[in-house]
Amino acid sequence: MAAADEAQGFRPLDEASLVAYIRATPALAASLGGRVDDLAVKEVGDGNLNFVYIVSSDAGSVVVKQALPYIRCVGDSWPMTRERAYFEASALREHGRLCPDHVPEVYHFDRAMSLIGMRYIKPPHIILRKGLIAGVEYPLLAEHMSDYMAKTLFFTSLLYNSTTEHKKQVARYCENVEMCRLTEQVVFSDPYMVSKYNRWNSPFLDKDAEAVREDDGLKLEIAELKSMFIERAQALIHGDLHTGSIMVTRDSTQVIDPEFAFYAPMGYDIGAFLGNLILAYFAQDGHADQTNDRKAYKQWILKTIEESWNLFQQKFLGLWNKHKDGNGEAYLPAIYNNPELLSVVQKKYMTGLLHDSLGFGSAKMIR
Amino acid sequence: MAAADEAQGFRPLDEASLVAYIRATPALAASLGGRVDDLAVKEVGDGNLNFVYIVSSDAGSVVVKQALPYIRCVGDSWPMTRERAYFEASALREHGRLCPDHVPEVYHFDRAMSLIGMRYIKPPHIILRKGLIAGVEYPLLAEHMSDYMAKTLFFTSLLYNSTTEHKKQVARYCENVEMCRLTEQVVFSDPYMVSKYNRWNSPFLDKDAEAVREDDGLKLEIAELKSMFIERAQALIHGDLHTGSIMVTRDSTQVIDPEFAFYAPMGYDIGAFLGNLILAYFAQDGHADQTNDRKAYKQWILKTIEESWNLFQQKFLGLWNKHKDGNGEAYLPAIYNNPELLSVVQKKYMTGLLHDSLGFGSAKMIR
Repeated sequence: MAAADEAQGFRPLDEASLVAYIRATPALAASLGGRVDDLAVKEVGDGNLNFVYIVSSDAGSVVVKQALPYIRCVGDSWPMTRERAYFEASALREHGRLCPDHVPEVYHFDRAMSLIGMRYIKPPHIILRKGLIAGVEYPLLAEHMSDYMAKTLFFTSLLYNSTTEHKKQVARYCENVEMCRLTEQVVFSDPYMVSKYNRWNSPFLDKDAEAVREDDGLKLEIAELKSMFIERAQALIHGDLHTGSIMVTRDSTQVIDPEFAFYAPMGYDIGAFLGNLILAYFAQDGHADQTNDRKAYKQWILKTIEESWNLFQQKFLGLWNKHKDGNGEAYLPAIYNNPELLSVVQKKYMTGLLHDSLGFGSAKMIR
Repeated sequence: MAAADEAQGFRPLDEASLVAYIRATPALAASLGGRVDDLAVKEVGDGNLNFVYIVSSDAGSVVVKQALPYIRCVGDSWPMTRERAYFEASALREHGRLCPDHVPEVYHFDRAMSLIGMRYIKPPHIILRKGLIAGVEYPLLAEHMSDYMAKTLFFTSLLYNSTTEHKKQVARYCENVEMCRLTEQVVFSDPYMVSKYNRWNSPFLDKDAEAVREDDGLKLEIAELKSMFIERAQALIHGDLHTGSIMVTRDSTQVIDPEFAFYAPMGYDIGAFLGNLILAYFAQDGHADQTNDRKAYKQWILKTIEESWNLFQQKFLGLWNKHKDGNGEAYLPAIYNNPELLSVVQKKYMTGLLHDSLGFGSAKMIR
């Protein structure tokens, strides 16, 4: 594989070669104010998959992310296509175009090197998951995430696009199949069978893990969700929208890491976000101590869950109403322009979407 | 368009140039026993879209079908990609590989010319629709069509294929989007609005056509079927499986004309076939006369509808059981190999499929 990678112009960077790469790449040098003589490089890839560097000059900072041909947290025993960087860059650009307030800009993408240069999301931004563990309230989280989900999902669906545009994009993202398979495996398969990749708090949860493996009713539902996940090209989803893919301050919310992006059911994104908030809710008891019983914080999480859905629904329907006379192929104006009919149609659509979201959210929580 | 076509190596054939083409094409000449000096050519394209020639020598016959860059029955006012011939040839080959008894062989395909050379389906084969009008019973029709549908649908689904293979094929057939849009328009849109392409028996059915256009409950269902039709890549369907796409004798059933083929819900094919039989059932009263009241024939149609579904279900589940330990990604053996669970899963799958089929069948009947 190494030889094939090399032939394609790929070489894994370290801190020294990264500096040379940046100096030779105008778009990256520009993002550092052109001041590339004295660069500080810090590797911060605490994620599972990639190497992530923060590079700083005295005039600015940039994030450089490189995908290696395997899964970082497992090692080269689990190969994984570097092309995920291409889909990540594509989705960052597409979602960024649709929702620039909540997606970092891509300054540079090098497909041969599987390398993305993007906006540095400055401190005090932290990963939302860490904020939830620390018990920090984010008053705009529901507002921002509902905005992100409504825009990215609506504008990549058949409610807005013609079938021609839709199928073209679907075909393109079909090639991100390895990442799709990774999700299938870790979300829809491994938890329901004995797998070396499963992790649980053993021996305390041995019985629970076994109960999941033996729950036939659950497996029946999971099978349908899995097929829907693979077959149904409803919108360009982020594909991994848990609280580790969101960076926050009290005023700002930034969604990162869409390397799992492809056309799939909208409910998978919504469910991932809501399901992770529900997990965070239940995890609070473990974080409670004498100075903070976390009860108020649990109430804030519940309120955020509720508001996220309600605001999402409101914004999604707002976009639908605004663009109902456009190119969208699902509900043609000549057929659905009777206001009562449209309202019934929308109610049914949102009920189905909530149903899907709860199903996928549950699957993500079990995983 | 004509200039662009010419640049791509396309020229519409007539009987004389067709003969020259055949003489210059070894695969076609071979299908005529190499006897190409004295060829008889007959244009038989009674369909809506293409030119179809039967070419005969004293040693054999072959069918040559050429797609023109518009819809034949409308004329060049309705342009339509010639690439439909590529998808027709692809689907004939793929379905033919899976079910050779009921699909004609492709001897030759010329993409630049949008031209397919295929097995001549000999007399006394006639189009099933004509047989149903004439009141002819086909004792093996249910047996054969259930075989065709079970094999073509099962073997192109995630019950048999890996996600990798599935997404690759889905992406490929996404490019048949113009044909997909044509179906969307004539099946899921035009009947529910005022459209110049709608045809009904006016003025006798004016009220009925209007009732369809004003039935909000119906439009609600149709919208969901339409979205499912576009979004859900369940299997490689024929895409136009009405009784005009089936040629029959008492002993043989041959499925032709899959130019609408792409990955879509299985129920669309099953529903098209069953829905057309139901229409044929209701049409019988119009064909009754003093010598034949068609009552027995109506019973035969009903029995054929019932048997088609029952045999389809039996064969489809037979294939599923036979291949349950294979590469299919939807129901992994490690999770679903408990026989009771598998049986419950299968029952649920078939119930969903019947439900989809009845929905799509109804949409096709209304159209």
